[in-house]
Amino acid sequence: MARGNEVVKEVEWRIKVEEDETLQKTVVGCMWAVTAGVALKLCKFVKKAWELGVNDPRKFIHCLKVGIALSAVSLFYYWKPLYDGVGGNAMWAVMTVVVVFEYTAGATICKTVNRMFGTSLAGFLGIGVHWVASRAGEQWEPVIVGVSLFLLASAATFSRFIPTLKARFDYGILIFILTFSLVSVSGYRVDELLVMAQYRICTIIIGSILCIIISVIIRPIWAGFELFVLVTGNLDKLANSLQCCVAQYFGGSEASEDSDEMSDKKLLGYKCVLSSKATEETMANFARWEPAHGRFNFRHPWRQYVKIGASMRSCASCLDALIGCINSDNQASDDMKKNMSSISMKLGANCASVIRELATTIRKMAKSSKLDILVTDMNSAAQELRSLLNSYPNLVNAPSHNAKISTQTETASPDDQAAKIEIPLMEIIQVVTVASLLIEIVARVEGIVENVEELSVLANFQAEMCVKSKQHTSDSKVSPDQQNDDEPVRTLQMV
Amino acid sequence: MARGNEVVKEVEWRIKVEEDETLQKTVVGCMWAVTAGVALKLCKFVKKAWELGVNDPRKFIHCLKVGIALSAVSLFYYWKPLYDGVGGNAMWAVMTVVVVFEYTAGATICKTVNRMFGTSLAGFLGIGVHWVASRAGEQWEPVIVGVSLFLLASAATFSRFIPTLKARFDYGILIFILTFSLVSVSGYRVDELLVMAQYRICTIIIGSILCIIISVIIRPIWAGFELFVLVTGNLDKLANSLQCCVAQYFGGSEASEDSDEMSDKKLLGYKCVLSSKATEETMANFARWEPAHGRFNFRHPWRQYVKIGASMRSCASCLDALIGCINSDNQASDDMKKNMSSISMKLGANCASVIRELATTIRKMAKSSKLDILVTDMNSAAQELRSLLNSYPNLVNAPSHNAKISTQTETASPDDQAAKIEIPLMEIIQVVTVASLLIEIVARVEGIVENVEELSVLANFQAEMCVKSKQHTSDSKVSPDQQNDDEPVRTLQMV
Repeated sequence: MARGNEVVKEVEWRIKVEEDETLQKTVVGCMWAVTAGVALKLCKFVKKAWELGVNDPRKFIHCLKVGIALSAVSLFYYWKPLYDGVGGNAMWAVMTVVVVFEYTAGATICKTVNRMFGTSLAGFLGIGVHWVASRAGEQWEPVIVGVSLFLLASAATFSRFIPTLKARFDYGILIFILTFSLVSVSGYRVDELLVMAQYRICTIIIGSILCIIISVIIRPIWAGFELFVLVTGNLDKLANSLQCCVAQYFGGSEASEDSDEMSDKKLLGYKCVLSSKATEETMANFARWEPAHGRFNFRHPWRQYVKIGASMRSCASCLDALIGCINSDNQASDDMKKNMSSISMKLGANCASVIRELATTIRKMAKSSKLDILVTDMNSAAQELRSLLNSYPNLVNAPSHNAKISTQTETASPDDQAAKIEIPLMEIIQVVTVASLLIEIVARVEGIVENVEELSVLANFQAEMCVKSKQHTSDSKVSPDQQNDDEPVRTLQMV
Repeated sequence: MARGNEVVKEVEWRIKVEEDETLQKTVVGCMWAVTAGVALKLCKFVKKAWELGVNDPRKFIHCLKVGIALSAVSLFYYWKPLYDGVGGNAMWAVMTVVVVFEYTAGATICKTVNRMFGTSLAGFLGIGVHWVASRAGEQWEPVIVGVSLFLLASAATFSRFIPTLKARFDYGILIFILTFSLVSVSGYRVDELLVMAQYRICTIIIGSILCIIISVIIRPIWAGFELFVLVTGNLDKLANSLQCCVAQYFGGSEASEDSDEMSDKKLLGYKCVLSSKATEETMANFARWEPAHGRFNFRHPWRQYVKIGASMRSCASCLDALIGCINSDNQASDDMKKNMSSISMKLGANCASVIRELATTIRKMAKSSKLDILVTDMNSAAQELRSLLNSYPNLVNAPSHNAKISTQTETASPDDQAAKIEIPLMEIIQVVTVASLLIEIVARVEGIVENVEELSVLANFQAEMCVKSKQHTSDSKVSPDQQNDDEPVRTLQMV
């Protein structure tokens, strides 16, 4: 029995051990699965992030620039003579670099200038208030400082709501409040306020200048140039979408040469136009802080690009409605579609060429010699489409006489066309709507043309010939910006 | 002669004096004019700014809140026991308040949480790096600190480009870089780094908590509620624009009851919808940081409002195209317009009621009992319009038999309608386009309906009856938000 008991115990023990082992294995397995899952997610995240950088290497360069600026400014601590000069105020140089260094040179300059002026102004004002308060006796000092802080901070905060101030000086006002608070309030405890303020302003100015230098010298990213690339790229996208949409509708799927995915991408390009309002405005705000660079002067009319963007959006929203109508349930009669296809596709192509020519005009910064002809072509194609619509009964009833239509359109009077077999309006409504929207798009494209022409006047675009001959004589002087122009898509991806 | 000379001199002198006086007067006059001009401009500016505040008094309140927060935090300096506790580090509390206090509670909370976590994480990491570096000997210390600073700052800067991180933690990452730089670099010179870091984190947390308390307790402005008001207000504007545009086109100017200015304002309301994308996204990003408030839970589906906004914009861009077509040169034949006017105006009104009902649904946060009926009405009106278009030849040729049309539409087959006098397509193209775009708008309104229904599922909207009975039993518990709902226009003006 004793032996039997022992055997039983041994078996129990074995079972327990085995159970424990299974539990342990399950736990370990679970942990492995969780770890692997997390690792996988992390890998995917890192991969995505890496692709983000690979698609636009300027992002990597920006990060390196921040690293360089911080390392440079930390010399204030490492290098003894420098540290002895400013002491703990070196902190402000480091802080300035971290806070002020932005992706585009324009944003960096905007912030540095705002910071320098905001700090200086608030510093002087703070010292003044402190001086007045210290004359008023110890009891009144905190009251005077407190009340002036309350009033100035409230007023400055309110001024941040005013649109014109907000667009240019938002950061400066924030820094004004910050510095004024620090100077006036800490003046109550700090003895050598003037010396401290002096060091602080000094270090902030040094940090700011360092930022500007690094931002402008090492592979600068100009907000103005980004805006320029964004607008010209959007013009191309709009042209592609428009042409692709008309071609797909009238030409059928076999008409497009690209693969489905490519043509879908082309078709939906106009969505970028619709959604780039905020980016355009931000860029235009920063661009005006930038010095002359590439082919752009200091006072290049950046606001005009925003206007061009707005007229593009108006055109894109019409295109959006057009695409919506095409995808709706009402299908058009094939006859009508066939009859209208050649002129509609011509009109679509003409519109697209006008928009592309506008993009080229902006890119080359030269008045186009072809633009007028293209606009005339577009308008005459629109007129042809109108005439074709005008001759509607012929159009529907004589599908076999396609060749005649173009000659008939001008002469056919509505009264000639009685007593013919008809098709219900429902079958032509889609084609009519598409045609009508195309004509509306033509009107809106003219709006873009006007805005671009205004830009060419404001920015003193020269005639194309002059530019060509100039380029010919100074071929070696091509700026990097001009080289970049040939590949706007690559540089666009940051937006 | 001497006498004569004297006279001449005197005369000259007088002339000179008079000339001088005239010059002086001119200069003084000019200065007065300039001063008056500047004063006038300044007056205008101040008046405009004042109106900005009067239109939305919450802006004034926000400014007062900033003043209160700053005055409160400056007690760190004025009150001796507090100052003795933290010393110069009180500066960080002041700085936190200035930088972190934002207009909406959500933005303030987002920034404070980001600042607290960014500071703490970077503080620990910085102390760790400093500890490792200080073990490596004096020669290697700056190298180790410098390299780690360069790498971490570059990596953190890069992470700010990643969209998901940028939307939530952009500020936190900035503060991380800032704190890490300050701690690791200044550790080279400061002896009691641990103590300093501790004080600094403490004061930052105190400043942050003060901001959150003031921002949430004194007349809070919730980003979520702003988003809610913006979206519902935009729905109303869209409905007004749509109805007004259809009524103006079909009903003529005498149909509108409002003055010209009012109806123009109504008509162009959809432009607000088109341009509020950026605001909606910002608000939605901040709203998710907010605690439960009013009728909104902590995890209220704010992203859904952005989706509703997107579907509204798609509808508004179609409306934009519609208005463009209406303003184009092609004028429609009056007969056709008259025949279609009643059904088109009905469809426009139906669309508008659906959109208004959606706004009410969101406002009341209760599933609407009427919505289904209204959508059915809208769809049947669209169907009627389609049928009317289908019966086109009858429509044009028998303007006197309007009453018959609705009965004929279903039965008339296209073949019955041969051999009748026609009008050219050109004269009806505008009406057809308008009708077709109206039908497209109906489809897009259904997109808004879907998104609002999704919201009602996500946010657990109850049936209207339940809400009413609940409100009946707890009438005294009406939250201030619910009271505000009745005047959404007033609260909208901040956006």
